[in-house]
Amino acid sequence: MRGAVLHAPRDIRVEQRDDPKITAPTDAVIRLAATCVCGSDLWPYRGIEPVDGPAPMGHEYVGIVEEVGSEVKTIKPGQFVIGSFFASDNTCEICRAGYQSSCVHRELIGALGAQAEHLRVPLADGTLVATPEVPSDDLVPSLLAASDVLGTGWFGAVAADVAPGKTVAVVGDGAVGLLAVLAAKQLGAERIIAMSRHEPRQKLAIEFGATDIVTERGDEGVAKIKELTGGLGAHSVIEAVGTQESMMQAIRSTRPGGHVGYVGVAHGVELPGQELFFSHVHLHGGPAPVRRFLPGLIDLIWNREIDPGKVFDLTLPLDQAAEGYRAMDERRAIKALLRP
Amino acid sequence: MRGAVLHAPRDIRVEQRDDPKITAPTDAVIRLAATCVCGSDLWPYRGIEPVDGPAPMGHEYVGIVEEVGSEVKTIKPGQFVIGSFFASDNTCEICRAGYQSSCVHRELIGALGAQAEHLRVPLADGTLVATPEVPSDDLVPSLLAASDVLGTGWFGAVAADVAPGKTVAVVGDGAVGLLAVLAAKQLGAERIIAMSRHEPRQKLAIEFGATDIVTERGDEGVAKIKELTGGLGAHSVIEAVGTQESMMQAIRSTRPGGHVGYVGVAHGVELPGQELFFSHVHLHGGPAPVRRFLPGLIDLIWNREIDPGKVFDLTLPLDQAAEGYRAMDERRAIKALLRP
Repeated sequence: MRGAVLHAPRDIRVEQRDDPKITAPTDAVIRLAATCVCGSDLWPYRGIEPVDGPAPMGHEYVGIVEEVGSEVKTIKPGQFVIGSFFASDNTCEICRAGYQSSCVHRELIGALGAQAEHLRVPLADGTLVATPEVPSDDLVPSLLAASDVLGTGWFGAVAADVAPGKTVAVVGDGAVGLLAVLAAKQLGAERIIAMSRHEPRQKLAIEFGATDIVTERGDEGVAKIKELTGGLGAHSVIEAVGTQESMMQAIRSTRPGGHVGYVGVAHGVELPGQELFFSHVHLHGGPAPVRRFLPGLIDLIWNREIDPGKVFDLTLPLDQAAEGYRAMDERRAIKALLRP
Repeated sequence: MRGAVLHAPRDIRVEQRDDPKITAPTDAVIRLAATCVCGSDLWPYRGIEPVDGPAPMGHEYVGIVEEVGSEVKTIKPGQFVIGSFFASDNTCEICRAGYQSSCVHRELIGALGAQAEHLRVPLADGTLVATPEVPSDDLVPSLLAASDVLGTGWFGAVAADVAPGKTVAVVGDGAVGLLAVLAAKQLGAERIIAMSRHEPRQKLAIEFGATDIVTERGDEGVAKIKELTGGLGAHSVIEAVGTQESMMQAIRSTRPGGHVGYVGVAHGVELPGQELFFSHVHLHGGPAPVRRFLPGLIDLIWNREIDPGKVFDLTLPLDQAAEGYRAMDERRAIKALLRP
């Protein structure tokens, strides 16, 4: 099959890879209907995360089940399914508490490479959620968004304790940040401040429910949030970048007793203990347990109550994955969907 | 009046200080029935926190109201009152959300020096809580404990989301850690693991409700907590020390999705962002909003349902404050009560 492989920083090639096979009785193999490039793929693409030899890329996927292992009970060939970036058994104590991305048996999908024609999904019964039937083509982008960026933005909002009546700020205007705006809206936030200086992203943020746009960053961004919130800071702040600056911006934009939900994969972040102590914020985040939210998100999409697929402003055939990476790296595209 | 003053590291003197006076119409002046030495007083005492000239010490207090300012409405002369280490208006938005120690008008009691015969308390109506009547003398130590260490341990337990059925670990066996054990018991924890290697403290921990004692520290302590919790870690971990080692021990002892409540004043702590991200813990803490808990804690003490005063294993006249500091510094005493 064809699949995207990162050979070195900025060297993405779509090339022939081995067809995935059932290797454990709990596996499924799916034929991808769509996959995409993630903001987190840009860390190794940019060389900020080391690349160890040619690495298959991608961890977002929707598609049709082709084959299942002998112990797979609920997932069937022919179903249209969505999974997330960690395979999880969905039965261990950690999964049952809603933290499937820390499942005691978790496996990283990224290592298997979902930017490809086919994908082996471990722990299929625990990992995959089937849609009511094979969706019409126009629903595919939104269902694909649920695989990671929507689920991650949603977790950010939940981790930030978004609730009716609250003021929410979102740091980061990538697909996750924009979908955190959508999640905050769905969760009933009264006021949603999107921090963005890119006009097309501001537009989408407003479409998703943002009530205010703040273009300032760092200390100036913090001052602006304080100004908009009676000097106190937002009740809930969602961090969707993962840098030192964005984390501190999020913490400092939150009022005492408020909540920071952080979902940007932390790179080079060191949190000063004393400042955190006196900030009085709640801090929660990490790799989103997307599986927890998938059934509800699929319902919302199926009933056309939300349209998270709008974050895909570039659609390319899989063979042009390299252009997808470039467009996102240069911020020409919010998110690139790849059609195998 | 007489009061304790820190002149330099390890140089505490009880000397003549000016009698406090009403300086704002919202002030009260109280005559102290008891005060005490706090673990956090040891930071400047040990020279870890810089001391800027002679500094009046102490921030824990109970006593009789002697005088109130013209705008004080609910607090009356003759009442026995308890307050905490931050004065707070108890009416601002932050106070009403339960974070009185981040009140927009907060004032630090420590700067006024509660290890003395008298104390001026700013924002008296918001800060002070009166007992139903003047208590019998045997209740005074427990009421004094509510002023900080009980309220702080309680906040640690609440911040760590302690609830019925949960397994709780407590890092730190000072008065706050021991009273966090008591709080966890009151909040219904099923299993309470106290981390302590000091026999008298272990004994008190068990008396307060600990079900297990772990003597190991650092990585070994973490391994022991994992061993006691099916490899997963505790649901709730209360950190009551404030060092890098204790914070990391707390975070690593917590299961994914679990909660760390940290109340040890952070000194030299830097939290690694990536480890925190992948730990999936909730992190919350800071200077305890003791005021939030005071009415409930006073009830529990008044009804003799809890006896937090047991943490005072040394009682001295105020004039011997220096010996109280020495005994705590050398860990000969858990906590020293001072009688003015």
